[in-house]
Amino acid sequence: MSTDADAIRHWWRTSIIEMEPGKIAFRGTPIEELIGNVSFPQMIWLMVRGGTPSEAEARLFEAALVAGVDHGPQAPSIAAARMASTCGLGLNNAIATGVNMLGDVHGGAGEQCAELYYDISRRLDEGTVLINAVQEGLDNWRSEYGKIVSGFGHRFHKPTDPRAPRLMALVRAAASEGTVSGRYADIGEAVQAELGRARGTPIAMNIDGATAVIFCELGFPSPLSRGLFCLSRSVGILAHSWEQMNQGGRNKGPMPPRFLPEYDPGDHSE
Amino acid sequence: MSTDADAIRHWWRTSIIEMEPGKIAFRGTPIEELIGNVSFPQMIWLMVRGGTPSEAEARLFEAALVAGVDHGPQAPSIAAARMASTCGLGLNNAIATGVNMLGDVHGGAGEQCAELYYDISRRLDEGTVLINAVQEGLDNWRSEYGKIVSGFGHRFHKPTDPRAPRLMALVRAAASEGTVSGRYADIGEAVQAELGRARGTPIAMNIDGATAVIFCELGFPSPLSRGLFCLSRSVGILAHSWEQMNQGGRNKGPMPPRFLPEYDPGDHSE
Amino acid sequence: MSTDADAIRHWWRTSIIEMEPGKIAFRGTPIEELIGNVSFPQMIWLMVRGGTPSEAEARLFEAALVAGVDHGPQAPSIAAARMASTCGLGLNNAIATGVNMLGDVHGGAGEQCAELYYDISRRLDEGTVLINAVQEGLDNWRSEYGKIVSGFGHRFHKPTDPRAPRLMALVRAAASEGTVSGRYADIGEAVQAELGRARGTPIAMNIDGATAVIFCELGFPSPLSRGLFCLSRSVGILAHSWEQMNQGGRNKGPMPPRFLPEYDPGDHSE
Amino acid sequence: MSTDADAIRHWWRTSIIEMEPGKIAFRGTPIEELIGNVSFPQMIWLMVRGGTPSEAEARLFEAALVAGVDHGPQAPSIAAARMASTCGLGLNNAIATGVNMLGDVHGGAGEQCAELYYDISRRLDEGTVLINAVQEGLDNWRSEYGKIVSGFGHRFHKPTDPRAPRLMALVRAAASEGTVSGRYADIGEAVQAELGRARGTPIAMNIDGATAVIFCELGFPSPLSRGLFCLSRSVGILAHSWEQMNQGGRNKGPMPPRFLPEYDPGDHSE
Repeated sequence: MSTDADAIRHWWRTSIIEMEPGKIAFRGTPIEELIGNVSFPQMIWLMVRGGTPSEAEARLFEAALVAGVDHGPQAPSIAAARMASTCGLGLNNAIATGVNMLGDVHGGAGEQCAELYYDISRRLDEGTVLINAVQEGLDNWRSEYGKIVSGFGHRFHKPTDPRAPRLMALVRAAASEGTVSGRYADIGEAVQAELGRARGTPIAMNIDGATAVIFCELGFPSPLSRGLFCLSRSVGILAHSWEQMNQGGRNKGPMPPRFLPEYDPGDHSE
Repeated sequence: MSTDADAIRHWWRTSIIEMEPGKIAFRGTPIEELIGNVSFPQMIWLMVRGGTPSEAEARLFEAALVAGVDHGPQAPSIAAARMASTCGLGLNNAIATGVNMLGDVHGGAGEQCAELYYDISRRLDEGTVLINAVQEGLDNWRSEYGKIVSGFGHRFHKPTDPRAPRLMALVRAAASEGTVSGRYADIGEAVQAELGRARGTPIAMNIDGATAVIFCELGFPSPLSRGLFCLSRSVGILAHSWEQMNQGGRNKGPMPPRFLPEYDPGDHSE
Repeated sequence: MSTDADAIRHWWRTSIIEMEPGKIAFRGTPIEELIGNVSFPQMIWLMVRGGTPSEAEARLFEAALVAGVDHGPQAPSIAAARMASTCGLGLNNAIATGVNMLGDVHGGAGEQCAELYYDISRRLDEGTVLINAVQEGLDNWRSEYGKIVSGFGHRFHKPTDPRAPRLMALVRAAASEGTVSGRYADIGEAVQAELGRARGTPIAMNIDGATAVIFCELGFPSPLSRGLFCLSRSVGILAHSWEQMNQGGRNKGPMPPRFLPEYDPGDHSE
Repeated sequence: MSTDADAIRHWWRTSIIEMEPGKIAFRGTPIEELIGNVSFPQMIWLMVRGGTPSEAEARLFEAALVAGVDHGPQAPSIAAARMASTCGLGLNNAIATGVNMLGDVHGGAGEQCAELYYDISRRLDEGTVLINAVQEGLDNWRSEYGKIVSGFGHRFHKPTDPRAPRLMALVRAAASEGTVSGRYADIGEAVQAELGRARGTPIAMNIDGATAVIFCELGFPSPLSRGLFCLSRSVGILAHSWEQMNQGGRNKGPMPPRFLPEYDPGDHSE
């Protein structure tokens, strides 16, 4: 029979951290043994899924974290964070403002793309050949998410997003060394090829599509493609918030004050 | 003479990132040269302040990032993020909820503590001896922020927060190798000693106080003690949000549903 | 041919507000004619959809806004905001923290419920009788959102949420006066009856289900059931943040500090 | 002796709401007696401070809420919320994004301005004449907050913000009817006159300065000038988020995609 205290403690149960006065342990290892002994990417891995990656796995994981840090002030997450830091907010609030924006259209793209890759992988497991698995996977994915396939295409980087080929080369190298299987690299590139074929012109694999390949190769569940991207992009959000703080400004709007939004009278009847 | 387009582009000027179709460079280095070649901590350093740390500097920096990742569901940032992930939000929104909470009392503590250390350091530069510099620095700091000195004391980890001595040992080792000066380790420990002396019982250096030592040793401006802590704590926030998502629950409140908040009729007159 | 300035201005075009130095007009009416002449609910209506409601419509609208302001510290939105205000954040950040939580499980419930009502309404328009329209609507809705029907059932208020019958009585009164049609009251109660019948025990219509009836009666598109609820709940979030600020506390966690989360060693292998 | 259950319940104690299954009461009044009987502004008043305003007080309060709803997409809070709603976020997340931005520079301006008014009022109580109380109050305020006085001056509305004279006229009318004293209207206008005199050219009272007059006349503590402004501005944030959702767009940045932020190579050395 559970006491009130047990019920409360159970309500907040966790397998991540164990604490007593003077003691902090993460997934069984005291913090003082982790500090100075594991890299930051290894610590991220330990925290979000448990276990410690090999050095080779950690290097590939790290490459994905490095790749996604920033895409400049044209990205709404970065612009919003820069504006926030001129409104008298602390850096914590500015970062939160930016990360909050990494919704289904951006951070969620990595998650949705990972779902597509895993679905295609299951079809391969069932014996479907790659090209068919890709087409069936795309059909299935689009019935849920619509025509635009997350992880592919870039309104700016045409025909190539410079991050994707570099990341894919690292995956291929890791596969040749046996660190990962290379299966999701095959899948990602097959999806890219199929999308290009269907529209008659090549399409870029973007940062979400490329990092999802890596996170799938390393076995992260799809929602973590979104979550890990948020950690990565937080770096750029912080850097830009801080740069803006040093540039100064108060209540920075999206354009210099002399430009006024166009007023479109529209239809004021209900 | 500036055109409209130039004015707009200038409004969003940045020294962090340069973009053209097919090109992304951070502080002058193409992204494809960074991916796979710099560690995630080095990338963080490059983004927020420019330049690349030596390997020894990066290791010390990494230790601070590893140390601050989590303090469990009793921390409001972690609890809020866990609750958020039961409200139908994406991991990006859950992380934002948690990071937003790292305000003056927590994330800001690192910033305020760094201000104290830098102020004491300036007094040393002016020839004041350490014990006097500490006392004057504390007086000055308290006149702005009040009696409770950020970075010291822990309501839970008494008498010692296990993270602090481990971090300080790494700083001392780095100082003995010439990576850092060790000045801020001296200052931090002198502040800790003075606070303990004044109240007649030892006081713990907490995670904010210890990481601020490292960020000061490495030359980061004080607001970045807050910003970098946010990056670090984001890891725990993500891990707990994800664990909660897997535990399930809908609209998780702060206690099991059978406990109701106490109603205190108070005084309803104005 | 669009100039750069025109392109920028067009990028931020709006039909809501027109500004010139010394002039602010909302949907065509100068602000100084609105201040003191329209009620706050009328202003909300004007802003989010244009037009001005009749007094009778405004009263019904206002009842929905009043009804949803708060559900106490057991609600994650309220608890999170209270915790936020002990972390050194301003009231703006505390409100944001709370409102951010009103995701698909809570604020989104009103939106999803309105979708259900509108779908059933369309079936009635096509000649389906109410009971069939309800069953078909529920089937259709569940194929998208799952078994638990948003707007109905309450883990705490059993068998009746006291807000719902009062709101429904106001809708009925408004219908008898010709202010609204009463169609969505019929639909909402038919859904409630059908859910109760199917599970063999009555089920409460909750605040999301009842306010969605009103917002549908008044013709608000379904996503605004979520948006308007956020405005309403912001009131309680502010009240609780402010009460907590006056109670004091620093870094308030979800339970008193002497209770520690239960550590569940779980399985640390990957 | 407190039991565990009592301790938990006490941790979340509140004077705002009392709940039992089937019962919700706010500051002692059952919700079903409030719905349909109090206006939304009266409910806001009841929630945040207790008590019910007279109709005349409620009208003045309502005018302040109406006045602050929006200042268009040039405001960072509005722009950020519009961008958020193109990132795949719900309206709750978009509102949170906007409200989070109402920090010390904006929402906080009302709070700081109310502090100034109350400080001047205390000086009047001590017998200082108005002009001296204003000068001393300004000196005292600036020693804490710096040269730019919150609540006065507008980079856009020169020489007059159309909201302020209208609000002040309503305060004057309410004072002549005995609803309020008019003391804070005197103070606000004396501050405005003094600021104009000192710089040799008239300065506008802005929305923060004018609503702070009303909130002080009605006896709200200064932090609530920030909090109530957030409720008001939430309306515009919702309206713009919703308008943007209907305009469409994905990952809307601060300027049309063909404009790129200027890259300023700066100094990449540390």
